[in-house]
Amino acid sequence: MLTDMPLDQLRTHRSAHRDPEGLVDFWDSTLAQARAAGGDVVVVPQPTPLTSVDVYDVTFPGFDGQPVRAWLRVPAGAVAAAEASGRGLPTVVQFVGYGGGRGEPADDLLFASCGFAHLHVDTRGQGSTWSRGTTPDLGTADPLSHSPQFPGVMTRGITSPETSYYRRLFTDAARAVDAARTLAVVDSARVAVYGGSQGGAMAIAAGALVPDVGAVVAHVPFLCDIRRAMTITDADPFHELVRYLAVHRDEVDAVHRTLDHIDGVGFARRGRAPARFTAALMDAVVPPSGPFAAHAEWGGADASVHKEIEVWPYNGHEGGGSVDEVAAVEFFRRHLG
Amino acid sequence: MLTDMPLDQLRTHRSAHRDPEGLVDFWDSTLAQARAAGGDVVVVPQPTPLTSVDVYDVTFPGFDGQPVRAWLRVPAGAVAAAEASGRGLPTVVQFVGYGGGRGEPADDLLFASCGFAHLHVDTRGQGSTWSRGTTPDLGTADPLSHSPQFPGVMTRGITSPETSYYRRLFTDAARAVDAARTLAVVDSARVAVYGGSQGGAMAIAAGALVPDVGAVVAHVPFLCDIRRAMTITDADPFHELVRYLAVHRDEVDAVHRTLDHIDGVGFARRGRAPARFTAALMDAVVPPSGPFAAHAEWGGADASVHKEIEVWPYNGHEGGGSVDEVAAVEFFRRHLG
Amino acid sequence: MLTDMPLDQLRTHRSAHRDPEGLVDFWDSTLAQARAAGGDVVVVPQPTPLTSVDVYDVTFPGFDGQPVRAWLRVPAGAVAAAEASGRGLPTVVQFVGYGGGRGEPADDLLFASCGFAHLHVDTRGQGSTWSRGTTPDLGTADPLSHSPQFPGVMTRGITSPETSYYRRLFTDAARAVDAARTLAVVDSARVAVYGGSQGGAMAIAAGALVPDVGAVVAHVPFLCDIRRAMTITDADPFHELVRYLAVHRDEVDAVHRTLDHIDGVGFARRGRAPARFTAALMDAVVPPSGPFAAHAEWGGADASVHKEIEVWPYNGHEGGGSVDEVAAVEFFRRHLG
Amino acid sequence: MLTDMPLDQLRTHRSAHRDPEGLVDFWDSTLAQARAAGGDVVVVPQPTPLTSVDVYDVTFPGFDGQPVRAWLRVPAGAVAAAEASGRGLPTVVQFVGYGGGRGEPADDLLFASCGFAHLHVDTRGQGSTWSRGTTPDLGTADPLSHSPQFPGVMTRGITSPETSYYRRLFTDAARAVDAARTLAVVDSARVAVYGGSQGGAMAIAAGALVPDVGAVVAHVPFLCDIRRAMTITDADPFHELVRYLAVHRDEVDAVHRTLDHIDGVGFARRGRAPARFTAALMDAVVPPSGPFAAHAEWGGADASVHKEIEVWPYNGHEGGGSVDEVAAVEFFRRHLG
Amino acid sequence: MLTDMPLDQLRTHRSAHRDPEGLVDFWDSTLAQARAAGGDVVVVPQPTPLTSVDVYDVTFPGFDGQPVRAWLRVPAGAVAAAEASGRGLPTVVQFVGYGGGRGEPADDLLFASCGFAHLHVDTRGQGSTWSRGTTPDLGTADPLSHSPQFPGVMTRGITSPETSYYRRLFTDAARAVDAARTLAVVDSARVAVYGGSQGGAMAIAAGALVPDVGAVVAHVPFLCDIRRAMTITDADPFHELVRYLAVHRDEVDAVHRTLDHIDGVGFARRGRAPARFTAALMDAVVPPSGPFAAHAEWGGADASVHKEIEVWPYNGHEGGGSVDEVAAVEFFRRHLG
Amino acid sequence: MLTDMPLDQLRTHRSAHRDPEGLVDFWDSTLAQARAAGGDVVVVPQPTPLTSVDVYDVTFPGFDGQPVRAWLRVPAGAVAAAEASGRGLPTVVQFVGYGGGRGEPADDLLFASCGFAHLHVDTRGQGSTWSRGTTPDLGTADPLSHSPQFPGVMTRGITSPETSYYRRLFTDAARAVDAARTLAVVDSARVAVYGGSQGGAMAIAAGALVPDVGAVVAHVPFLCDIRRAMTITDADPFHELVRYLAVHRDEVDAVHRTLDHIDGVGFARRGRAPARFTAALMDAVVPPSGPFAAHAEWGGADASVHKEIEVWPYNGHEGGGSVDEVAAVEFFRRHLG
Repeated sequence: MLTDMPLDQLRTHRSAHRDPEGLVDFWDSTLAQARAAGGDVVVVPQPTPLTSVDVYDVTFPGFDGQPVRAWLRVPAGAVAAAEASGRGLPTVVQFVGYGGGRGEPADDLLFASCGFAHLHVDTRGQGSTWSRGTTPDLGTADPLSHSPQFPGVMTRGITSPETSYYRRLFTDAARAVDAARTLAVVDSARVAVYGGSQGGAMAIAAGALVPDVGAVVAHVPFLCDIRRAMTITDADPFHELVRYLAVHRDEVDAVHRTLDHIDGVGFARRGRAPARFTAALMDAVVPPSGPFAAHAEWGGADASVHKEIEVWPYNGHEGGGSVDEVAAVEFFRRHLG
Repeated sequence: MLTDMPLDQLRTHRSAHRDPEGLVDFWDSTLAQARAAGGDVVVVPQPTPLTSVDVYDVTFPGFDGQPVRAWLRVPAGAVAAAEASGRGLPTVVQFVGYGGGRGEPADDLLFASCGFAHLHVDTRGQGSTWSRGTTPDLGTADPLSHSPQFPGVMTRGITSPETSYYRRLFTDAARAVDAARTLAVVDSARVAVYGGSQGGAMAIAAGALVPDVGAVVAHVPFLCDIRRAMTITDADPFHELVRYLAVHRDEVDAVHRTLDHIDGVGFARRGRAPARFTAALMDAVVPPSGPFAAHAEWGGADASVHKEIEVWPYNGHEGGGSVDEVAAVEFFRRHLG
Repeated sequence: MLTDMPLDQLRTHRSAHRDPEGLVDFWDSTLAQARAAGGDVVVVPQPTPLTSVDVYDVTFPGFDGQPVRAWLRVPAGAVAAAEASGRGLPTVVQFVGYGGGRGEPADDLLFASCGFAHLHVDTRGQGSTWSRGTTPDLGTADPLSHSPQFPGVMTRGITSPETSYYRRLFTDAARAVDAARTLAVVDSARVAVYGGSQGGAMAIAAGALVPDVGAVVAHVPFLCDIRRAMTITDADPFHELVRYLAVHRDEVDAVHRTLDHIDGVGFARRGRAPARFTAALMDAVVPPSGPFAAHAEWGGADASVHKEIEVWPYNGHEGGGSVDEVAAVEFFRRHLG
Repeated sequence: MLTDMPLDQLRTHRSAHRDPEGLVDFWDSTLAQARAAGGDVVVVPQPTPLTSVDVYDVTFPGFDGQPVRAWLRVPAGAVAAAEASGRGLPTVVQFVGYGGGRGEPADDLLFASCGFAHLHVDTRGQGSTWSRGTTPDLGTADPLSHSPQFPGVMTRGITSPETSYYRRLFTDAARAVDAARTLAVVDSARVAVYGGSQGGAMAIAAGALVPDVGAVVAHVPFLCDIRRAMTITDADPFHELVRYLAVHRDEVDAVHRTLDHIDGVGFARRGRAPARFTAALMDAVVPPSGPFAAHAEWGGADASVHKEIEVWPYNGHEGGGSVDEVAAVEFFRRHLG
Repeated sequence: MLTDMPLDQLRTHRSAHRDPEGLVDFWDSTLAQARAAGGDVVVVPQPTPLTSVDVYDVTFPGFDGQPVRAWLRVPAGAVAAAEASGRGLPTVVQFVGYGGGRGEPADDLLFASCGFAHLHVDTRGQGSTWSRGTTPDLGTADPLSHSPQFPGVMTRGITSPETSYYRRLFTDAARAVDAARTLAVVDSARVAVYGGSQGGAMAIAAGALVPDVGAVVAHVPFLCDIRRAMTITDADPFHELVRYLAVHRDEVDAVHRTLDHIDGVGFARRGRAPARFTAALMDAVVPPSGPFAAHAEWGGADASVHKEIEVWPYNGHEGGGSVDEVAAVEFFRRHLG
Repeated sequence: MLTDMPLDQLRTHRSAHRDPEGLVDFWDSTLAQARAAGGDVVVVPQPTPLTSVDVYDVTFPGFDGQPVRAWLRVPAGAVAAAEASGRGLPTVVQFVGYGGGRGEPADDLLFASCGFAHLHVDTRGQGSTWSRGTTPDLGTADPLSHSPQFPGVMTRGITSPETSYYRRLFTDAARAVDAARTLAVVDSARVAVYGGSQGGAMAIAAGALVPDVGAVVAHVPFLCDIRRAMTITDADPFHELVRYLAVHRDEVDAVHRTLDHIDGVGFARRGRAPARFTAALMDAVVPPSGPFAAHAEWGGADASVHKEIEVWPYNGHEGGGSVDEVAAVEFFRRHLG
């Protein structure tokens, strides 16, 4: 059944989300601080049985310079070729859905098999529910970033934007783009960000924080119009917020304020890259009004920004599955040049 | 929790399955009839965005010559190279789990990215639950092959071995090997069969029916020691058999007889290729005594046959996931030469 | 809780269903082809322990002349009496709900115990979920009628109206009326069609395709306003359609077109017999807007057609249960004369 | 899956149940008191649309003379015929499963359609879950018979045998036989007791308390070897006992003592009529060791007593369904003469 | 997710409940009859390990004079002190949620630890689901008060207001206030009624039937706007009513009439004491429109009556939990003087 | 149903747990390091509406000196009285079950109302699932203590004993005893440790690490014989370990080694205080073989140690509920002197 408004209403729906005061400064200073923290991008060849794809184990500095892991997959020999030619490849920086990590080296071969460099970014503190990750979430110096949380990371440090888990994760996302651009195999002018669900939220955030990325694809993106989503679905991970507030009844205002700082609708207004969204009308995990709201706001007042939204009428959170992945490849080819 | 015996008991467990009279003849004549029916292997290039892998849409003659679809994925340019050199590639013929089909052209790039030719075989009449398929299940001339079935294909034609759905599907599996061997890009001496769950059952059957295949890998194989499985799990698809017999109470003996003809334990005794199995101790869909029973019988009385079983102590039906896939690549490299 | 609109809105609700072009021809030619295929109605006495009811095992030609089974139950001695007198009995042709078959000979004694001849029609390819059936679904010559289906028959051959399972089943329903009328024990002028859920959909279809039936009773009829139902319930079997389209994303338009050919709302417009419907306000399997829509359309523009709808405010899909069955007997007495 | 021991173990299993001291006296005095309370059997014709079966609304004195309702169904005209001839019919007294009542007048026509008189007995205080009943459970003068109960009647008055709900219900069952025998249409020498689940438990109890009944058929009988059942299933209604004792932790011994007074194993030892039981190996509501235990004890030390047990290997609590009903008719024909 | 209207709509929502004719007389005569039946309030010291709180086991006359149990908890020595001083304590009479009883003597120490006398009233016939009770529900002389019920007490005697379970329970609630006022340790002028869920419904009823109580606190009160609740939730215990009517289809009007006699909205119009309500926007057991409706009606036309409602936006039926309990203490301190 | 062995087998069951090498040193050095880290015990009066109990907000140094919160509840005026008299009270240090925190100040009044000082210790990083907590889990300097975790804290830092969450939590438990003993209101010689489920595991650990505590009560203690529990239950939180290892397949040995360091069976061997355990035979969260194993090992070779185990035959994880709490009070009175 439909989990949200019918399609015709979704097409004209606008979110009630309002950017909190200081939102832009909050993110700009966070990202500036991360960049200031420095740190090296370390790239180590990773043995695999693959012959047409080379894999590297990458460590790059994320939030506050903390080390974040990723897999870099490229067509076989591409690194040496780029170093020799000085010409990098069009590149996809991919973020992962809730609970997952970067997975195994030989997973997810699509982008490299299509000629892209593919930086598959680990998810701090997650990576133990469905795909393996190894990046710790070191938190901040503020003990509140380690405060009691409902199981899952949604509510880690949720009492303030500064200590919120997603401040760290979204900064990792932006810094992943920075890291990619340091690599010879990457053509800095042709870097796209990509992901589904939480990975879609990260793609939106990275697209807003690094507005000169070449393209953004966000499949059924999570964390858009969060306050509305909390009232219309009982599915995790949105519901983790509800469960937390059911115990921490005195923190409703504080949590609302934090959520308003990490909402994809707010990020979308800052995005300028060509962007593709998907939404699924029977998605109970990410009700489609969230992706539609992000799509509606993308580009803010700039009507020249290219954006599109694909609608899956009979799908749940899987959306278009690998059909969407191939469509993303084609979108990247079209928009990265 | 454990879904079956503890590991130490599994290691010495032997199935109570007894081969029904005429089992070998039943399968030999079925396969002979399919081969006699003839039919062409049609290979059509399939457009994809891939650059390092070429994909072809294959139609080959399966049971009774009926057309079965598959994707052929090979390293880019491999077909022309093989035609030029006369030397084919080591090849993996892959079968799919219950409810799935061959999926999308650009899915499952591992084997081709490791230098194999990869024939990914569709599943007749399935392919509508989790991955897309397009091959019809035309049945036999006997109307009983179209008789009332509990939802799912487990009980289609179940009243006799001749009309049973799995007679057709396992014949398709054997004929897929035949079809692969007709292709220039395939090195006939180095063809392996591979699959998980129902795909594992098909790999076992193909390995028994085409005993000169080069290697067999069956992950958490379904349909081994079926009668036992029916009494120890309520999970589909084994439970479809129970639900059918709960309505067709007068067909218990007939259904038992059919099941005895399609049981992987019976096939395993005929296998001679090097074989690798996996089992998961918390697998409720395929309780591990089935895979262990198939492993125990593999090779029959021939002690020289190489066989091994990987055990996942804390996994369910996902078993080793993509870790197992990479291990399969390595097993094929080791045993296909 | 209510599963659909409140009662006052249901009373004025009209379906958005639009008949596809050629709908009438599609069904007329299908039925004409079935009638042209011919085939005998075979009636064999069935031993039972009953003393006041005689049971016969009937085989009649359905879709394309394919054999369909049924039980014929009549008051003891009625067949001989009718043959002697030349006067048949008022007759109820009953169709069965999803997953069920004609059941056991001595089941469902109500109609015969009330003096009716009772033809209890089997359901091709079903009859393995809750009541036993034995009629195969032979499909058509077109392989698409055997294409991959989501478990259950809803999506069998769903890619075109011609290959759709329900084309065959609804034709069986109309042909069951034809078959009944060939029997001496049946008064051809007093044949009613009857069923609940899928059986109700079949009664509506038969009532439309054989418009001179004497009466129609459809309890909580399935398959009315299908497209709406798919968006407001997650219960099977409507949900089987959703699950199929979640995998076969490219077939949405084709499936919509097929559904528009089998929708009970379209059939209802052709009905002219006195008709009784029921609907249950807490029915999640058949949300009540479907039955109400069929009721609203019944008789088309002909205001003289008698129609009524019984509403069960606190029931689910069981509706009025055996209370409704007795009400059906009384409706038939009133309207069959 | 199997819900209890494998079949070979069930065949030799004996219950650990021990009859509590005074068990025979407890039931004999209870029944004597009920008989002493007297009360009339009132028989009122019930209008229905049936033509081959006549239905009467019966009220008879049950426990302590309290009024209990039943439907009497007989072949049309049988009452007048019996009154004229002085010869009654073989008779089936049927009891109903947990939560149900006698249902509607025109339900359950099998026995009357086979030439039996059929007394379908209501269930005091139940009849609101799946089939309608109207008999109140007036309890006893002891307030403990109205004490707090877990939802459902299992624990009503459970703190002592005297106040237990099942003391009253089983007495109703025995008194139903007495009532039937007062009717002209009933042949007192040919009265059988019959039921499934709770109805099977009542049939066993009535067969023990009125040992000269002509036959007993108990399908998947509930309440046999209760203490064992409580430890091997979480399904209601056995689980109601567990839930009650989880709150009334201080009443374990008292409840055990009550259960020992109502256990079907204790009753079975007193039975002498030919008896037929069924058990289903996948029955989670009534695990099969209970029915097997009752079967093993039936007839006590008297080896001449005929008894049999039908086993359904792949069924749950539905057991043989209407196949069992027809088998019961045949058993009654064989054993009532 | 929200289980009912959004908050802004709840704030202006008014129930469609209409008081049935004779409602006031019905309750006045019921209460008068209970008071006329007389009966003693018996107070027995209860041994516990507590040192700062004394507990007494109280039996008082409830509906029709039937004995009802309660715990009386007071600050240590308070009874002797009150007897010596002639000055009683402010007092909280507490009622319990569905399925529970008065629990254990040393449970629920808050009120006595805050200096109140605390009469914790048992729930007739319940007390076996989550907290222990011992009070029988003796019913009335009318057998209909013992008629078949759906499991749980919601539908006990539901066919008429006179025989309804809640007539008895609400009378117990009012008589508990009467009983408290007979005790020296209680200051009759400062007695409050208090409870959550069903206990909240009882507090509302007692506050209406004994309008000179000093204060009323009803947390997420059950049984307000019952007819609406039945259509918007499937959660028990409201759903017990639906399940009963699904079987007793002929009693819909009678049950509606009974429900109209026990609806908290009707009671609320008679309340005059200062009242505090809570509602939880994600409460599926008691959708918030019920508590809001009761709050809206409280005090009837008397605008001087103090009333307030606390809203928990992210809680389910637990509402504010112990935070609400402390708020109740503060409300009582403020309003009892 | 039983979730583990029958009672007679439990009584003689011994765990297969073997203490890992260096276990005693591991814990001794961890505790020594925490004590060496120092830190103040800060006690701040907490306003509540209570009159017979005073509550204080306590912060004490736990693992590595990190601040841990607790509530201190004492009889009103007890602190001043103790300071005046120099005589402290017998004291209960209570730990909390999984997901919970110290809750609200006025919760859990039993111990203080019985004359004990009651230190109710918060749970680092939890306190967001069912009762509120505020203590952060700061982890260690090793980033692995912040590594990816399955939702919940079970697997936080699980790859080594040093980084494991439970190393920190159990150290907090021991340090809570140290902290209590610094308070004037506490009689250092009469301090007991107490808790249920995870709180029971903490009580066992504290009783082992601070072996001169006066008494230990562990209700249905969690984390005893962990490796066995993982194979016999699918209930969280044991199942969190399984889910983690299903993704981190390469960490099985490391996780086993960590679990062996935190298993309650290992701690139990070091306990010397009088100890009381409970176990529930239908407990799926903590199958009873764990509590029985801890009981069996308690006191190690010292047969003079008093120990007892209470068994609840029909309860789940709630065990004896508040009945057990009162029994704990009595046990403390008996053994603390």
